Amino acid sequence: MREGVEWAVHCCINLSFISPDRAVPAARLAAFHDLPTAYLNKQLNALGRAGIVSSRSGPRGGFRLGREPEKITLMDVAAAIDGSARAFLCTGIRHQGPAGRIAGPAGHRTPCTVSQAFSRAELAWRRRLARQTIAGLADEVRRANPAAPDHVRHWFDRT
Amino acid sequence: MREGVEWAVHCCINLSFISPDRAVPAARLAAFHDLPTAYLNKQLNALGRAGIVSSRSGPRGGFRLGREPEKITLMDVAAAIDGSARAFLCTGIRHQGPAGRIAGPAGHRTPCTVSQAFSRAELAWRRRLARQTIAGLADEVRRANPAAPDHVRHWFDRT
Repeated sequence: MREGVEWAVHCCINLSFISPDRAVPAARLAAFHDLPTAYLNKQLNALGRAGIVSSRSGPRGGFRLGREPEKITLMDVAAAIDGSARAFLCTGIRHQGPAGRIAGPAGHRTPCTVSQAFSRAELAWRRRLARQTIAGLADEVRRANPAAPDHVRHWFDRT
Repeated sequence: MREGVEWAVHCCINLSFISPDRAVPAARLAAFHDLPTAYLNKQLNALGRAGIVSSRSGPRGGFRLGREPEKITLMDVAAAIDGSARAFLCTGIRHQGPAGRIAGPAGHRTPCTVSQAFSRAELAWRRRLARQTIAGLADEVRRANPAAPDHVRHWFDRT
């Protein structure tokens, strides 16, 4: 999974602490975690294409959440940044060499047992990510450090 | 996940169809799926270090399963080949820049909310892989193609 996923999730949590009326420039979101702006901007644009953030151009432009943080899951963010990339890649070796000749044409019509087994595990992973929202993570941050949301909001207000 | 995982799982299933007394050379396991022997040999040695296969050297040497296929899970194979690599890599950006100063020293003592959320999803993935055994996959192959185990055994007997 690309490191952009970590960046994007933290940015979404930070944006959830800020007034939804307020657009934050990419440079400011990057500065908060000392990240390279150009590369973070790429991730923010990917979030934008998925509707997770919305952007406004102009002097008071920037990014804000595109919908309520209760409606943004970790699966949404991971898919926006990482695509629908799968952890297990089936290259179809069961069709290669003598194995392929033994399986015969029928082997090409049935799904690969090994690939399906890994797919079941990936589905469990995706389901777990889909149950965790930005709002839920923001709540966890708040419980661990009750002053954090205010501190974050104040830092972004000082722009 | 490395493509070696796919190779290793198919090799384990093939070995489960063969008499446990019989050791199969890496070159033969590779030829069955038209794979490069040297690279497959590396995967087989990794399986050997994890006790998933055992090897015997000499003219009648080769690999066989190191324990019953009921006791080899996809998690065992994936961990042997891919290490304990995690899909989500936390680079600790919450400690960087102003974010780190806001969190303060307490932030270094508490685990990262984002990293924990991804860990929960990875745990779901690992648990699912740990519930699937080579014996179970071999049974699925047998149900899809009842003649497959005998065909595989005969091909390896013709060495």
